[in-house]
Amino acid sequence: MNPLAQTNPHRRFNPLKQEWVLVSPNRTQRPWQGQMEKPVVAAALTYDPDCYLCPGNIRAGGARTDKYTSTYVFENDYAALKLDAPRFSNDEDGKGILIAEGESGVCRVVCFSPRHDLTLANMTVPEIRAVVDVWAEQYRELGSRDDIAYVQVFENRGAMMGASNPHPHGQIWASRSIPNEIVSELAGQRAYLEERKCCLLCAYQEMEIRLGERVVATNESFVAVVPYWAVWPFEVMILPLRHITDLEAMTAAERDDFASMLQSVTSTYDRVFDTPFPYSMGLHPQPVDGEKHPEWHFHTHFYPPLLRSATIRKFMVGYELLGSPQRDITAESAAEVLRKAAAR
Amino acid sequence: MNPLAQTNPHRRFNPLKQEWVLVSPNRTQRPWQGQMEKPVVAAALTYDPDCYLCPGNIRAGGARTDKYTSTYVFENDYAALKLDAPRFSNDEDGKGILIAEGESGVCRVVCFSPRHDLTLANMTVPEIRAVVDVWAEQYRELGSRDDIAYVQVFENRGAMMGASNPHPHGQIWASRSIPNEIVSELAGQRAYLEERKCCLLCAYQEMEIRLGERVVATNESFVAVVPYWAVWPFEVMILPLRHITDLEAMTAAERDDFASMLQSVTSTYDRVFDTPFPYSMGLHPQPVDGEKHPEWHFHTHFYPPLLRSATIRKFMVGYELLGSPQRDITAESAAEVLRKAAAR
Ligand SMILES: O=P(O)(O)O[C@H]1O[C@H](CO)[C@@H](O)[C@H](O)[C@H]1O
Ligand SMILES: O=P(O)(O)O[C@H]1O[C@H](CO)[C@@H](O)[C@H](O)[C@H]1O
Repeated sequence: MNPLAQTNPHRRFNPLKQEWVLVSPNRTQRPWQGQMEKPVVAAALTYDPDCYLCPGNIRAGGARTDKYTSTYVFENDYAALKLDAPRFSNDEDGKGILIAEGESGVCRVVCFSPRHDLTLANMTVPEIRAVVDVWAEQYRELGSRDDIAYVQVFENRGAMMGASNPHPHGQIWASRSIPNEIVSELAGQRAYLEERKCCLLCAYQEMEIRLGERVVATNESFVAVVPYWAVWPFEVMILPLRHITDLEAMTAAERDDFASMLQSVTSTYDRVFDTPFPYSMGLHPQPVDGEKHPEWHFHTHFYPPLLRSATIRKFMVGYELLGSPQRDITAESAAEVLRKAAAR
Repeated sequence: MNPLAQTNPHRRFNPLKQEWVLVSPNRTQRPWQGQMEKPVVAAALTYDPDCYLCPGNIRAGGARTDKYTSTYVFENDYAALKLDAPRFSNDEDGKGILIAEGESGVCRVVCFSPRHDLTLANMTVPEIRAVVDVWAEQYRELGSRDDIAYVQVFENRGAMMGASNPHPHGQIWASRSIPNEIVSELAGQRAYLEERKCCLLCAYQEMEIRLGERVVATNESFVAVVPYWAVWPFEVMILPLRHITDLEAMTAAERDDFASMLQSVTSTYDRVFDTPFPYSMGLHPQPVDGEKHPEWHFHTHFYPPLLRSATIRKFMVGYELLGSPQRDITAESAAEVLRKAAAR
């Protein structure tokens, strides 16, 4: 690692999204007098009669959650996307400025466990493997539809990240169009493949394993790294060692290893500040738009907001929204903190 | 406005950034059981002995804030950018993946008023005009340097938007490189000019004034609209009616009108939920990279997070971070709420 980069302001390039991030390691001494977050309290009850995701309970929309015993999938009662949404497209005024088009899709909720008090971090690997199987099955089913081009599996964990319920669950939003982030990642991976005749993320994971300084965890099939171009303080990306495009392409052993890697990353996070670590997490499989995507390497992003303690977060505000993302701690020092937390 | 778009999920295209936003007007009925923000309390003291921005006080870094009487500019004590940062650039490993380069620049703080309890919304127009003059002067001074290509003026207002101090102030981050958002907006404006032989935002503001449904306020020289492609619930863009590239190109009357427009937008915001409305705000003048930018139209963005009340915000999390931004209320209904608030 260039030692100049460890102590001086610099920019790093994200080759996946083809964007820069500003890194200011010199800024970590800054005292914080701003907003303190409410410390997160772990859910204590195994069953909460007021939780709409606990087995057998009635949800806000009036439907009843089944008495499930492992995982449970249902259509979001307040879906942002609907399959029967009308198709239209307009350029009001004909000036190429007011451009809109109807968008259709499906929003589902995936409960990870009937137990209200669990999280990915304290579920067993076989239990998480059941979640991975559900994701793979959903990806297959939704991906086989002609009117779905992308299946976005994600989890908002913790109130700080907009989760409205601590019950362990994630969501799936599947859409007719390919979302912005995927459009960028397609372009980045395509450009690299064309220019270098090899897969960007294959080359990246090999290099990270060799260099070691940003690696958080490894197993037989996966590596977890703080990406060189990380934006969030303790951002992590999980990469399969093999060139796999999506969940369906995984062997049974790889699915187990993926479950185990999800468990290590989330439980490591919880140890950093001895608090249930909030994050948004999401899988990035290849699009299901009917095209071939040899450039695409399956990966999983974790975007956690905490910066210095259980109550001090990084704000993505002014400069970040209007200019470029900015971070204080380097990816290398974040990885070191995570490795130490993992070893505790 | 296409009536289908008022009630059904659709995407709208942002021609400035060339990105899509997902709009789900069908989702506003969703009950909210998630995080409630602390209601914002307006600062009551005109002078706070513990505030490092009040005249005459000592700051965390040890420096003393002058006994200023109008506006006050100083170098950020914990600057993310420094002018003397070493220049380097590396492609560690030579694979075009670990790309970094030294970044230099200046970070300054601009106090808007010596009064601790004021905000742009309750300052007088001549007082805000003094702030506009400071911004113009800073833009001129920093922009004349060879090692500065962009001058980003912004304000984070409210603890929810990462402001660490309620004293009315903003920041200026000026950098050797052009930040991501500006790179996108340059591309969007250039593409439009090339294709249509006219300025994107000139065409846009004329059309918005004619249609009226997204207009929040107008005066002799400016219009404030909820952009057709707004991401934040009550996002606003202020546009000069004339094709002006930056603050320096404004006449004295236009500077007054800009001050007055800033006052109306911020005071309208405060009336929406009867609370000091948090936001990040920023000016987007043309880059100061020594190139000509005939495509560039000066504009100001307001990104406020509140959605349904003083304590319920929009979270930009899971799908937004991993897929595309998503909003529930349409730009047209947000503009209507703002117009009603303005009339109260
Ligand atoms: O410089 P400040 O006000 O301490 O910091 C605030 O604004 C900066 C620029 O948007 C952000 O990077 C910080 O996360 C935020 O807390
Ligand atoms: O669908 P939920 O969990 O109610 O909502 C949460 O996740 C969504 C998808 O990231 C966001 O749009 C919402 O702002 C957030 O509160």
